[in-house]
Amino acid sequence: MSTATAPQTEEPILLRHDANGVATLTLNRPKAYNALSKALLEALQEALEAIGGDSSVRVVVIAGAGKAFCPGHDLKELRANRDPVFIRRLFDQCSRMMLTLTRIPQPVIARVHGLATAAGCQLVAQCDLAVASEEARFATSGINFGLFCSTPGVALSRNVSRKQAMEMLMTGEFIDARTALERGLVNRVVPADRLDEEVDRLCAAIISKSPVAVATGKRLFYRQLEAGLEEAYRLASEAMTCNMMAEDALEGIDAFIEKRTPHWRGR
Amino acid sequence: MSTATAPQTEEPILLRHDANGVATLTLNRPKAYNALSKALLEALQEALEAIGGDSSVRVVVIAGAGKAFCPGHDLKELRANRDPVFIRRLFDQCSRMMLTLTRIPQPVIARVHGLATAAGCQLVAQCDLAVASEEARFATSGINFGLFCSTPGVALSRNVSRKQAMEMLMTGEFIDARTALERGLVNRVVPADRLDEEVDRLCAAIISKSPVAVATGKRLFYRQLEAGLEEAYRLASEAMTCNMMAEDALEGIDAFIEKRTPHWRGR
Amino acid sequence: MSTATAPQTEEPILLRHDANGVATLTLNRPKAYNALSKALLEALQEALEAIGGDSSVRVVVIAGAGKAFCPGHDLKELRANRDPVFIRRLFDQCSRMMLTLTRIPQPVIARVHGLATAAGCQLVAQCDLAVASEEARFATSGINFGLFCSTPGVALSRNVSRKQAMEMLMTGEFIDARTALERGLVNRVVPADRLDEEVDRLCAAIISKSPVAVATGKRLFYRQLEAGLEEAYRLASEAMTCNMMAEDALEGIDAFIEKRTPHWRGR
Repeated sequence: MSTATAPQTEEPILLRHDANGVATLTLNRPKAYNALSKALLEALQEALEAIGGDSSVRVVVIAGAGKAFCPGHDLKELRANRDPVFIRRLFDQCSRMMLTLTRIPQPVIARVHGLATAAGCQLVAQCDLAVASEEARFATSGINFGLFCSTPGVALSRNVSRKQAMEMLMTGEFIDARTALERGLVNRVVPADRLDEEVDRLCAAIISKSPVAVATGKRLFYRQLEAGLEEAYRLASEAMTCNMMAEDALEGIDAFIEKRTPHWRGR
Repeated sequence: MSTATAPQTEEPILLRHDANGVATLTLNRPKAYNALSKALLEALQEALEAIGGDSSVRVVVIAGAGKAFCPGHDLKELRANRDPVFIRRLFDQCSRMMLTLTRIPQPVIARVHGLATAAGCQLVAQCDLAVASEEARFATSGINFGLFCSTPGVALSRNVSRKQAMEMLMTGEFIDARTALERGLVNRVVPADRLDEEVDRLCAAIISKSPVAVATGKRLFYRQLEAGLEEAYRLASEAMTCNMMAEDALEGIDAFIEKRTPHWRGR
Repeated sequence: MSTATAPQTEEPILLRHDANGVATLTLNRPKAYNALSKALLEALQEALEAIGGDSSVRVVVIAGAGKAFCPGHDLKELRANRDPVFIRRLFDQCSRMMLTLTRIPQPVIARVHGLATAAGCQLVAQCDLAVASEEARFATSGINFGLFCSTPGVALSRNVSRKQAMEMLMTGEFIDARTALERGLVNRVVPADRLDEEVDRLCAAIISKSPVAVATGKRLFYRQLEAGLEEAYRLASEAMTCNMMAEDALEGIDAFIEKRTPHWRGR
């Protein structure tokens, strides 16, 4: 277990706990409901980049300490620094962190136990996968205080249908966990007391797979989404050929043919 | 209350009724089930452009008079003017009107009380939001008379999944309001006698928000949808910075921190 | 009834059966669960191209012989030819076949009676429409043997939501037919003993339509999906104008106005 290096005098604002190939990053500003302050965004960026280069980590889980998952940006900080240069840098930094979620080779799972609003809802939407407690609730609530959730809308509108995204963005109203599941914002919903068990199950399913296949696949997935169909297939054929040449594919197919468990080498 | 200026001798084919920041445009050709004749498309275009520049209007509702919402183009008019120049101009005009729905600063809500077929279904799909009565039904039925709903398909395929759109386009079969809700074609479905109440509720939710935030957000929403993820975030960060510099964001955040209702200035 | 010309000594690996305007292509390697060997991909490509130029065919159905629909590529063949040139050509060939499904003028319906995994799941996703038995199951299971389903992911991520696709691709887990229906991967689900009846019903619905309208519409549908909204409407207006100038549109509208059944000429 290590901790983020963001400047701090007391408990770190981001915790990292590693176990069995899973790095869990816990937003740790419970008194501020884990609002994404500049310092917390920096700590997340740093932690994600470190994990991206750490082959001992197979899956990343993003969790929140205390009652809420994440309410988005820190409004008091925004208010105190209402200068276009500061604000633009803050949103750019947040967007860079969101893009990094999609760029590191490991799948990132949001573990949503409570409220996820504004950039907190964006964080859920931008993770590769999400598991929610039945008590989780989601909103893009910036519109309630005069600030349309434009950046959260980027991720949200790539998870749910256009009209569903527009309604959340325009009204700021909450949806519950079941609705989030039906619409595609989260992958699984379980009772609160089974949330860790379900996250563990999903992590274990991914950890049992070949790291090279997972990393190749994640990278290709986001690339092909932005291409037309013909170009998407060209990119994907290329990726599959590379993947097929990896030792793990050879081992995986041999294991399948021989009806045994594969032993991945990670190359 | 004003009326459209399309040439007419009797009752206008498009009614505009303004109340409490809501402009309701009612398609008013009940004997023709509100078919989108050239004149009605022109009246809609003119009304939407006028509303786009009218800051007293905060939300637009599109409704239909009589039994149906809208059956699409006027087949008798198409038949009587089957000339490639007329036809192309008509479809271009219809497409311009549909694009205008997304370009005016105010959110546009379809109030669907009955049948919405072909370009009538497209109108629902292209509105930012839609509220339907349980009695509403939707189809892209042009295929039944030899005319594949290609332009309706543009809006439909951006609302529902690809195979669901293809099935509607190829078979011309109806879906009911509940199915439209599940698939994302409409936002809310209520019993017929509660339709106005629900539309009012949705309008009120939007009207309570900052006009500048709503307008900034709507514009950005459609722009970012057509960009790749990185460019979408760049555009959205820019939009959020502008939004944050508006007085309404300052007021909204102050009101939030001070736990009071914000008073928007609209800038 | 004809058969594919792929080299063979016994029963052909792809069957083609034509009846009433429907060409049914049956993957016929039941002992290999209909795995997409190089020869089977070639036979499919050849059959689809022949059908594309055959105006007697109005709808294509793709089915599988034996217990499974299709398990994807032939792993034993991949293993025996693990050479980058062979592998790349195989995936390019598979992608070409998948693109051909979208390029021939006739709608293609997957008839899924059993297991559809990896490129078999991709085949379902890439068809224009799909009807499944309640016993059908779907997975992108390549990840289980070290080979991320990158090419299947291209089609899958254009059918279901992003997080739903990612979960299937990363875990290799199955979804059942009802889940596939809710998510948009298939259009209809029926008990196994009613599968043919339902496929026939869907074919009949399409065959009753104008061939020129169906072909015009299918081509435009895939083109506009890859364009921005304004360009999509420009392409669609053009397509509708052409469609409107076809004799079938004239006949269709006349029949509608005269309340009689249209008689398509196919032009």
